[in-house]
Amino acid sequence: MSDTFVVVGGDAAGMSAASKAKREDPDLDVIVFEKGEWVSYAACGMPYYVKGDVDELDDLVTVTPEEFREKRDIDLRTNAEVVDIDREAKTVTVETREGTEEQPYDDLLVATGASAIEPPFDGFELEGVFTIHDMGEADAIEDDVSERDLETAAIVGGGYVGIEMAEALAARGFDVHLYEMLPHVLQPFGEAVAEIVEDHLREQGVELHLETAVSGFVGDGRIEAVELEDETVPADVAIVGVGVTPNTDLAERAGIELGPTGAIATDQYGRTNDEHVYAAGDCAEATNVVTGEPDHVPLALTANRAGRAIGQTVTGDPTPTGGTAGTAIVKAFDLGAARTGIVDEGRAREAGFDPVSVTISASTRAHYYPDGAELTVTLVADRESGKLLGGTVVGRDGAKRIDTVATALTAGMTVAELQNADLAYAPPFSPVWDPILTAAKVLNGKLE
Amino acid sequence: MSDTFVVVGGDAAGMSAASKAKREDPDLDVIVFEKGEWVSYAACGMPYYVKGDVDELDDLVTVTPEEFREKRDIDLRTNAEVVDIDREAKTVTVETREGTEEQPYDDLLVATGASAIEPPFDGFELEGVFTIHDMGEADAIEDDVSERDLETAAIVGGGYVGIEMAEALAARGFDVHLYEMLPHVLQPFGEAVAEIVEDHLREQGVELHLETAVSGFVGDGRIEAVELEDETVPADVAIVGVGVTPNTDLAERAGIELGPTGAIATDQYGRTNDEHVYAAGDCAEATNVVTGEPDHVPLALTANRAGRAIGQTVTGDPTPTGGTAGTAIVKAFDLGAARTGIVDEGRAREAGFDPVSVTISASTRAHYYPDGAELTVTLVADRESGKLLGGTVVGRDGAKRIDTVATALTAGMTVAELQNADLAYAPPFSPVWDPILTAAKVLNGKLE
Repeated sequence: MSDTFVVVGGDAAGMSAASKAKREDPDLDVIVFEKGEWVSYAACGMPYYVKGDVDELDDLVTVTPEEFREKRDIDLRTNAEVVDIDREAKTVTVETREGTEEQPYDDLLVATGASAIEPPFDGFELEGVFTIHDMGEADAIEDDVSERDLETAAIVGGGYVGIEMAEALAARGFDVHLYEMLPHVLQPFGEAVAEIVEDHLREQGVELHLETAVSGFVGDGRIEAVELEDETVPADVAIVGVGVTPNTDLAERAGIELGPTGAIATDQYGRTNDEHVYAAGDCAEATNVVTGEPDHVPLALTANRAGRAIGQTVTGDPTPTGGTAGTAIVKAFDLGAARTGIVDEGRAREAGFDPVSVTISASTRAHYYPDGAELTVTLVADRESGKLLGGTVVGRDGAKRIDTVATALTAGMTVAELQNADLAYAPPFSPVWDPILTAAKVLNGKLE
Repeated sequence: MSDTFVVVGGDAAGMSAASKAKREDPDLDVIVFEKGEWVSYAACGMPYYVKGDVDELDDLVTVTPEEFREKRDIDLRTNAEVVDIDREAKTVTVETREGTEEQPYDDLLVATGASAIEPPFDGFELEGVFTIHDMGEADAIEDDVSERDLETAAIVGGGYVGIEMAEALAARGFDVHLYEMLPHVLQPFGEAVAEIVEDHLREQGVELHLETAVSGFVGDGRIEAVELEDETVPADVAIVGVGVTPNTDLAERAGIELGPTGAIATDQYGRTNDEHVYAAGDCAEATNVVTGEPDHVPLALTANRAGRAIGQTVTGDPTPTGGTAGTAIVKAFDLGAARTGIVDEGRAREAGFDPVSVTISASTRAHYYPDGAELTVTLVADRESGKLLGGTVVGRDGAKRIDTVATALTAGMTVAELQNADLAYAPPFSPVWDPILTAAKVLNGKLE
């Protein structure tokens, strides 16, 4: 009798783990329980479906349930919710349309994901008010904005999702109002990026309401306006994207420990406090490569990578899940903005560093070559050690240059070492000193 | 009396050194002797001047002689050729239009650059036959192709310069024939890149003559044809770009030692065998970060970086010149191709490695996002240590992703470490696993 690997949750982390485990050990029984209908879909693609860049919701599915079942020989059960874990007996309780069943496991992966935060707004239940965190919601938004003659959209929250949805709905012809409680959008990207993105959003016709708290939505059956502290602003549809919270209930009830971030605590192999229970993806912590401390980075690559590593580990080949640098990139109309590592000076100090930072702007091409775009780069380092802590970039072209900084963070480089990286130069692609190198050079000068 | 820093050669390495030294120590006398007219110009931009993307040759000048003299307070002398170095007396002999003079130095930088190789072709002296390695030549080519009604261009050599000039002359309406002695163009990029570039060159109408040796040019006063082993092919103009050779005569005559590559040997600070004589740029060696051995990489960033470091060192702050990974990138019509590190398996074996490599192709964007382009990535690693040795990329978009590989080489990462780099993902910019990560994943699987 072969071992059984049970996975709870059929998205990035869960399906990566299931696929890898089965590929490494074809004799292993791999069972995935997904409470919904959709598995292995690109949540990050949903704004582009609403925008109209992606024709069918199905296009966002990376691998279909049939492929998992037939080609990969994974026992995938959709509409099957795991409601209880008995760690003593090593079984899970599963509710399906047919009833309740018990499933034994040898190793278990909790990949329950995260949920969109729903602030305690009045009128959240009104028609035309949405969050966007799963395919059902993306579908509902698309239906809603396609079927009605709507004019004004309210986006609540200036994070990735808010900005991507602002672009999507502007492309659909809406007058877009974006509400952000904090002084700036894209808080994790720092001020240098935020100010450039904010100017661009305004240029594109988005009405920005910064430092503006939404208290609720008003309407008769359907939303008609957004309620602020001292005014109401008309809105025909509202998207609330104020962040996500890890789905930890199932794990907590089974006595699985959470970490300081509120997500499930794991070791370098993705193991929880129970050696037969792993956690990965948006519900779990990962180790920040800069601080060495637990971090909660609910992003796709971290989930895929951790899932894949755990799939390998449960077949007897212990594989670290890899750290996270918190690297993220977002398209805001014609701009790309990206971040990695520790950008916020307060957070750097909390982690025991003495942060020094510079912000420079430079062309992405040789000065004489046509169509160069300005890239603004911020780098942050620790004064004493010279260790690179993080960085951001923003511009019309070249936002993927953040990968150079992210790689340097993964390698634990100092700014002096990054300054000596032999990056590629030819006039159509870069100035002699790539903007990242120029920033490193200036920052290194400040450290000396 | 302050010290005197003398620089021989007024391009990338020389002017970087002069500028940095003067900025660090304003009391230092900094004298630059440049035998020609032009200083601090972007030789890499010359093909784009011929193509017509750059309006004026002057646009390629980064800093003008007046700016060096007036703003940077550098004693820059053009049309002044250093013909001799007396290391005992610590003087150089300089020939100018006014005559010959002696100039004492405390520290000396030899930044004499490289020259285009002129193979022993018959008919090299014919009108319409050019190399392209300085601004005078770029100007002459532009004049020649503008003033005459020419139809067919011969490019001899399929390296960077040959390919860039093929693009430039095709854009000017020429029928372009490109002759390469070796089985493939872009030899330092390896076969995977070469084959893709060759297909693209043919699609763009370039007549490729691979494994074809040119023996000379024929014509009556002006070139009329290219002479091959067993045929002659009509040509109205010819550009010979078969590589460069370091200008080491001046240094050699003064007893400065050359290294195994034939360029001037230097230590990590750019010092030659004479502690008061430095060498940098296209005439000098640099340390390869992968092999730790001397290498000759006549490219702009290496020159700028070494010059800048030497400028700092001579003011009393010893600064390593930084290694080279041999990173290079080239535009070939609509393609970008790039390389870094050790790509050639033979060369890897010579350096004591046991090379393993993979080549993968992947989209530069999420599969459902519009306008993704295919990027082909090759990574090479050492079997036993897992150490990353080098890589190449080629595609219509994303060639600057080579910087991730170059940074990993500078940091001395293994493939397993690169596989865990936290690179940026969002659908408009990358698939979840960036093509570089996919290649690392596949290569790592092969190493296990």
